[in-house]
Amino acid sequence: MGTTVKALAATDAGGALGAFEYELGELGPHEVDVAVTHCGICHSDLSMLDNEWGMASFPFVPGHEAAGTVAAKGELVTHLEIGQRVGVGWQAGSCMHCRHCVGGDHNLCGEMEGTIVGRHGGFATHVRSKAAFAVPLPEGVGSVGAGPLFCGGITVFNPIVQFGVKPTDRVGVIGIGGLGHMALGFLNKWGCEVTAFTSTGAKMDEAKELGAHRCVNSRDDSAIEAEAGRFDFLISTVNVPLNWEAYIGALSPKGRLHVVGAVMEPIPVTAFPIIMGQKSVSGSPIGSPATIADMLDFCARHAIAPVTETFKMSAANDAFEHLRAGKARYRIVLEQDLA
Amino acid sequence: MGTTVKALAATDAGGALGAFEYELGELGPHEVDVAVTHCGICHSDLSMLDNEWGMASFPFVPGHEAAGTVAAKGELVTHLEIGQRVGVGWQAGSCMHCRHCVGGDHNLCGEMEGTIVGRHGGFATHVRSKAAFAVPLPEGVGSVGAGPLFCGGITVFNPIVQFGVKPTDRVGVIGIGGLGHMALGFLNKWGCEVTAFTSTGAKMDEAKELGAHRCVNSRDDSAIEAEAGRFDFLISTVNVPLNWEAYIGALSPKGRLHVVGAVMEPIPVTAFPIIMGQKSVSGSPIGSPATIADMLDFCARHAIAPVTETFKMSAANDAFEHLRAGKARYRIVLEQDLA
Repeated sequence: MGTTVKALAATDAGGALGAFEYELGELGPHEVDVAVTHCGICHSDLSMLDNEWGMASFPFVPGHEAAGTVAAKGELVTHLEIGQRVGVGWQAGSCMHCRHCVGGDHNLCGEMEGTIVGRHGGFATHVRSKAAFAVPLPEGVGSVGAGPLFCGGITVFNPIVQFGVKPTDRVGVIGIGGLGHMALGFLNKWGCEVTAFTSTGAKMDEAKELGAHRCVNSRDDSAIEAEAGRFDFLISTVNVPLNWEAYIGALSPKGRLHVVGAVMEPIPVTAFPIIMGQKSVSGSPIGSPATIADMLDFCARHAIAPVTETFKMSAANDAFEHLRAGKARYRIVLEQDLA
Repeated sequence: MGTTVKALAATDAGGALGAFEYELGELGPHEVDVAVTHCGICHSDLSMLDNEWGMASFPFVPGHEAAGTVAAKGELVTHLEIGQRVGVGWQAGSCMHCRHCVGGDHNLCGEMEGTIVGRHGGFATHVRSKAAFAVPLPEGVGSVGAGPLFCGGITVFNPIVQFGVKPTDRVGVIGIGGLGHMALGFLNKWGCEVTAFTSTGAKMDEAKELGAHRCVNSRDDSAIEAEAGRFDFLISTVNVPLNWEAYIGALSPKGRLHVVGAVMEPIPVTAFPIIMGQKSVSGSPIGSPATIADMLDFCARHAIAPVTETFKMSAANDAFEHLRAGKARYRIVLEQDLA
């Protein structure tokens, strides 16, 4: 009864991807199957492939930044049409009845279903999700750039919404990579004064093209310290320890340092400066379907799209090597050629 | 032309208080002199007396929880009357023109004038402040209990306002002392479900009388861990390191751990749990004159008052000993007898 999916899977942690087929099985009443046309690659695909977090099961099919069209829909799915363009990100389902789901915070559901956690992802002809998590793509959002918005994009867009960043705010983005380069675009069009914290002169020029009004050398402690008291909102997209004291010092009173990069070493937060300045340190994961929809509308209205490099999906191993080498500028997208 | 003030001062760090007189000098156009009837004692009076923060100057007159009446007012002070009951807390002035002052956040002003920083405090017949920081006491707020509201009280009331704590929230107060016991009363009348984190059985009974609906043993890690995911808002009033990981774990998604106790050792904030749960760690200092006025109205409406022990002001050394010994239940107030 189900669809046979042609996919790419690794059979063990850190292994190369190879051809893999599986049956999707019967479609649930609230589920959809998406025929994948494009799929972004996220650093967390690598972390899962390498089983860094102990959450992967093998054979493992990566891919949680999928864009495509609705190929099949369950009998209770009335709001999507066959053939409609949609995207599926990190989250493919939630309980739909807990306090967080009914409150619109599906991304905080304790029973969140990850697209590549215990199930197969978007490096494939098809990916399945609950219909609520296949979010329609507006006309102004192209399919190549759509995928990266569904994980990397929403991860930096959501906190702007959740924490009420205002167009009058002075904001900074720490780390201009897959996530950070989208944050620059969002915050620029949000109306903020945008500062990029990045390393080299060449990256600074690119950061300005991406939406930064000014740049600070992230490798120069004294340059960060010279920003003391400036920022209403700082978002860190990096997963290595930073000079946290200097960044907290760079916050204005009532400022917030928000981390979306999963740095493993604890951030040492000293009470005195956060007390005196009424400062906050926080984090957040992806975003809800409603916020994803708002982000897509915002992107369409402001012509925001990630900067992408494309590979054929069959060349996913090469793409992973490119990502591992730190060469991605700024987000890799795989084009479907498995069908 | 000025008033001669009879006060108590220490001549060196950690020294005993002795009789001290000084002249207030000419009253500025926006200043008031308050004839002190009562003055609370705060732990930060001790920290300043001992010059722990390197901010004290000697002779040092403690006291920043003063209640009294307006004894003199500057020529441009039109909103206060001679004889009117007012209180003066940690802050005696601010620049009145920076972004924070004009935005209503005078307590975040970079030029904040501390009542006992570089000037003489409320262990005295009179204390001077800018008129905006001498906040009128409503009829329902008695003079004995008023002083402690102006520092300890506003320190725990202000974050409830600033961070939008809702009556439907589940909240916890860590440390039931001078600040924490007032937090219990505020949060109870705010409508929240209130949990006290405290140590002994006897303190638990008192915490329930003070407004807690339930208590958790703060010395039992497993008891704290059993609260995982429960709290929308936790406020820590203690200045020693805690099991921060367990308290952050006790936050619900979108929860906030807020510190007002100036613990010296950094709080280690691990990225993964705050990211997955969209959690925040924050701090804040005292509150603005407007928030103090709101707090006083709230206290009058709900008959909230600190639990106080009174000493004659001339016995301030005994009162300090009582506080140093950890015996204060819950806030010490000095009654004027220097005049």
